[in-house]
Amino acid sequence: MVAQDSVQVVAGSVQWQPGSGPAWNMSNDWLRDNCRCAACRHPGNGQKLYEIVDLPDDLRATAAAVLPDGGLQVRWSDGHVSDYAAAWLQDHALSEDARRSRRAHPTLWTGALGAQLPVADWPALLAEPALELAWLEQYAALGFGLLRKVPTEPGQVAQVGDRLGFVRVTNYGRLFDVKSVPNPTNLAYTAVGLGVHSDNPYRHPSPGVQLLHCLESEAPGGDTLLVDGFHAAEILRREDPAGFDLLRRVPMNFRYADAGTELRARQTLISTDVDGVVRAVHFNNRSADWLDAPAELAQAWYAAYRAFARILKRPELELIFRLAPGDCVVMQNDRTLHGRTAFDPGRGRRHLQGCYIDGDAMESRRLVLRRSART
Amino acid sequence: MVAQDSVQVVAGSVQWQPGSGPAWNMSNDWLRDNCRCAACRHPGNGQKLYEIVDLPDDLRATAAAVLPDGGLQVRWSDGHVSDYAAAWLQDHALSEDARRSRRAHPTLWTGALGAQLPVADWPALLAEPALELAWLEQYAALGFGLLRKVPTEPGQVAQVGDRLGFVRVTNYGRLFDVKSVPNPTNLAYTAVGLGVHSDNPYRHPSPGVQLLHCLESEAPGGDTLLVDGFHAAEILRREDPAGFDLLRRVPMNFRYADAGTELRARQTLISTDVDGVVRAVHFNNRSADWLDAPAELAQAWYAAYRAFARILKRPELELIFRLAPGDCVVMQNDRTLHGRTAFDPGRGRRHLQGCYIDGDAMESRRLVLRRSART
Repeated sequence: MVAQDSVQVVAGSVQWQPGSGPAWNMSNDWLRDNCRCAACRHPGNGQKLYEIVDLPDDLRATAAAVLPDGGLQVRWSDGHVSDYAAAWLQDHALSEDARRSRRAHPTLWTGALGAQLPVADWPALLAEPALELAWLEQYAALGFGLLRKVPTEPGQVAQVGDRLGFVRVTNYGRLFDVKSVPNPTNLAYTAVGLGVHSDNPYRHPSPGVQLLHCLESEAPGGDTLLVDGFHAAEILRREDPAGFDLLRRVPMNFRYADAGTELRARQTLISTDVDGVVRAVHFNNRSADWLDAPAELAQAWYAAYRAFARILKRPELELIFRLAPGDCVVMQNDRTLHGRTAFDPGRGRRHLQGCYIDGDAMESRRLVLRRSART
Repeated sequence: MVAQDSVQVVAGSVQWQPGSGPAWNMSNDWLRDNCRCAACRHPGNGQKLYEIVDLPDDLRATAAAVLPDGGLQVRWSDGHVSDYAAAWLQDHALSEDARRSRRAHPTLWTGALGAQLPVADWPALLAEPALELAWLEQYAALGFGLLRKVPTEPGQVAQVGDRLGFVRVTNYGRLFDVKSVPNPTNLAYTAVGLGVHSDNPYRHPSPGVQLLHCLESEAPGGDTLLVDGFHAAEILRREDPAGFDLLRRVPMNFRYADAGTELRARQTLISTDVDGVVRAVHFNNRSADWLDAPAELAQAWYAAYRAFARILKRPELELIFRLAPGDCVVMQNDRTLHGRTAFDPGRGRRHLQGCYIDGDAMESRRLVLRRSART
């Protein structure tokens, strides 16, 4: 015997008992505000056509019934009738299990990922939406992806940026050159090694995505280091929960200043969402300004900062590879930290170009390609 | 008799007693990481030249002395010597009073501000840095500013955006037109009134600043409504602390979808920083998608949502004015909510152009102009 869905109205609220799974005492406001009828939502663009204050304060359900498809029909105290499809109810269930299953589950990685880099040839990706979708899915899971066969012409990185999303112009311009120069304004423009970091935490908002395109790599050294900041944060949470909590709660000040610029931002090194899931990591030794926190927290915060910095240096977390001319690495800037080994500019040229884009356009593209993949 | 500064090292830590104010037991890591010597920070760009893990784990102060200028000199267990100027110590004190005085203090406003709008003529602002600084200071305090005499030519809004900061390109393009069109993809492109809202909460990150430039305003109606979202949030905190806390903790899902776009973001309606200060308000009825929260929180969250929406509609909070051709309103998108009254497109034309920029470039410009103003 198959259990049947059932529904009843108790004291003006809908009590929904699906055939399987826990009962659900539904909030009237929540349920009504999710009405998808053409009077409530624009059928074309899905925008809401009323304001929340337009609903009666004492809104109650007066009747409820199971629809033939297993969905739900509710009649409201103001006379409105709402239908909820079975699939919609399933996709929007609020039980702890249902909510957990909807969360993004990033694939945490270590240096061992080197054997299976998320890589696609740029011309092939442009020609084949299925390949583009597969690469975007890998990017979403891992927080970075590699493109090959990007033409080795100056300015191409911004072309790639404008195809994946929209280039974000900053005080560094539409794109920036990474090579050693005399009198550098930034250590990135020297030949020293750089520990892993996220770019521009002194900016509000920080760049969502960074692209680095290799034009020349003759100089010995200058290999690319990547570390999964989400993985490092989870290691800190496991090994030092109190330290994790301090870095999550107490922000540090970051700063960049030159003759025409004075950028300042306060950011926590680790950001979590309401479910406790790590959503962002900002770590940049060079542009760390100072900790403006209660004096009694300072020593404990620094102990956590040191612990996190040490985790980020564990060799097993470091993914090391060498960018060849035509390679372009695309990194989620608030997850995948990047650095480089030192190089010898006297024994060959090394020239990268980079730009920033926002991440939402890449995520939008992934979801749109998924729509087509389903049809 | 004037109290003297004094300092001693107790158990390896610096205890600083300024001539006035509370004693300060200084964290060794904090103090050393703030060393400004040329070996620790690049004298040109201020970037940090060592990594936090390079400092000894058991770092201790071995001696400390008051400098002639009232500053502090510390000798460390690894032999390094750090000097801290008196002014630096004062600017970076960690007492509760000192920290509170450093926080941004937005000037909360109501509709009564209409008598003293923060306004500047665009050509004059371009010619006179002191005027630009004054306008930027007003913008920073109030969360919006008005520019007049912007040439009434299409595309000018992006010119203004690229002068105040850098235009942020989105799926709407570099700029967008706000006028009624047939088959609108967005309610903004109809003639209906719009309740106050922030733009694009479905984007990650949401736009920091919105510009709206008036090219034509012959149609009766279509006045601009602004509400100070920070003020509304503080009213909610006072009148309904539990509701404020729910909106601060529990995010809602926002969404925008059309044929080529699928933008989704989770945002709290109110964001506060570690000190409890309101830092962002996101409110948009039209693009509200749904609340993905524990079922038992839903009804209470909706009660808070209704309460906040009602506060945003209080007539005394509404600043109402009419944009004339050549006017351009510049709004901090996560603070100053905007809307419009309905207009009659059959009785005259109404045409605005808008664009988005990030807020950090405007803030940088304000701080750089302040440097010059001091010298």
